[in-house]
Amino acid sequence: MTATDNTKVTLYELALEDGRSASPFVWRIRYALAHKGIPYETRYVGFTEIPTIFGGKFKTVPILQHGDTVLNESWDIAEYLDRAFPDQPRLFNTPAENSLVRFTDAWFMNEVMRKMFRVYIKDVHDAARPQDRQYFRESREKNMKGQTLETFTADRAAHLPAIRTALAPLRQYLAKSPFLGGSNPNYADYIALGGFYWAASAGTLPLLERNDMLRDWLTRGFGLYGGIARVPGVEPLFE
Amino acid sequence: MTATDNTKVTLYELALEDGRSASPFVWRIRYALAHKGIPYETRYVGFTEIPTIFGGKFKTVPILQHGDTVLNESWDIAEYLDRAFPDQPRLFNTPAENSLVRFTDAWFMNEVMRKMFRVYIKDVHDAARPQDRQYFRESREKNMKGQTLETFTADRAAHLPAIRTALAPLRQYLAKSPFLGGSNPNYADYIALGGFYWAASAGTLPLLERNDMLRDWLTRGFGLYGGIARVPGVEPLFE
Repeated sequence: MTATDNTKVTLYELALEDGRSASPFVWRIRYALAHKGIPYETRYVGFTEIPTIFGGKFKTVPILQHGDTVLNESWDIAEYLDRAFPDQPRLFNTPAENSLVRFTDAWFMNEVMRKMFRVYIKDVHDAARPQDRQYFRESREKNMKGQTLETFTADRAAHLPAIRTALAPLRQYLAKSPFLGGSNPNYADYIALGGFYWAASAGTLPLLERNDMLRDWLTRGFGLYGGIARVPGVEPLFE
Repeated sequence: MTATDNTKVTLYELALEDGRSASPFVWRIRYALAHKGIPYETRYVGFTEIPTIFGGKFKTVPILQHGDTVLNESWDIAEYLDRAFPDQPRLFNTPAENSLVRFTDAWFMNEVMRKMFRVYIKDVHDAARPQDRQYFRESREKNMKGQTLETFTADRAAHLPAIRTALAPLRQYLAKSPFLGGSNPNYADYIALGGFYWAASAGTLPLLERNDMLRDWLTRGFGLYGGIARVPGVEPLFE
């Protein structure tokens, strides 16, 4: 199979009220498809629509459909794309590269993204389609020991310094290299860029200091593939 | 050139009082030479001897001599080994792998190793050769704003929880994979293993909780290449 096959690729994405796709996990796959040059169709679903498609088989997006194949874990999808489209640029050129991207993912999710969810969870609620908000609130508040989204995020600005500090290894690395993948971006960049795009899309509190040197990499990353993530762009991330 | 060339490889290492080599940066190269199967001779130098060799050109070890080539930055040495011994197993199979190892290095140095120096700096002083201790103390205390090694480390146990927490991404990753390199170890493993070996060699305060799941990876890593780092072994790291 190649990208010129007739077998259609469809990506199910999460729709916010403004129609934007803002799942950090969907964005990994948006970048992956662009990296490989695979044309695809987008199908937007709201939070409450996910159980109504594919017989309720999946609880989350992204969902990728390619002929008879349907997958929904972003890592499974990324590895599938390399197998199904071997002649397109690879996401992972060696097993060690795949492993180190997985470590980078563990770092980003543990040290950065988890703290970002803490700050932006009410913003995502507010940005969701009106018909999805009740579900979003109930499902999230279940894990908050009786707190509401409002009380949970009341002191959210106090969590920003820890996020900024946690980004130190990324800054140190990017001082000498344009992308996590080196001269060219790879799936580690897409993982992190997807997280930052999510914060830029839904967030109402700037994540980074005005002069944070991550700006250069974020601008480069959001501008990849013809400006894939340039809307809403990098500005909302900065004080 | 191959490992069977007659051009001798000599590694200058840091000697502690017990004759052990305990620089985390030297250990990266010990592992790298073993990975590539390159035979070499060891020359031990104390802290105060480094300025007396190679006309005082280098302030740190490792120093690698290979014919007319002399290098001392561990990253320069690692990349040189892949160039000079292209037929031996490579340390970096792709530019992206090199980049991601460099990111892992930035993470490990920033989040883990720097905090470990904080805990073990007086232990390293005490483990150094007697004739090196005065130099070691003076050069380190210069950066401690008037504190002595003793006052600087008086509350060192209080820093252990932060180190243990900082290792969360490594634990999460290793729950699914034997090495940072995947099925086989690569230079990212050697960087981290070298840091842990250093703590195991000189440290007098256990770094990790008894049941830390990192034990399996550390045991595997210290046991590589015929037990390269099995002396003093993994036990001193655990409560």
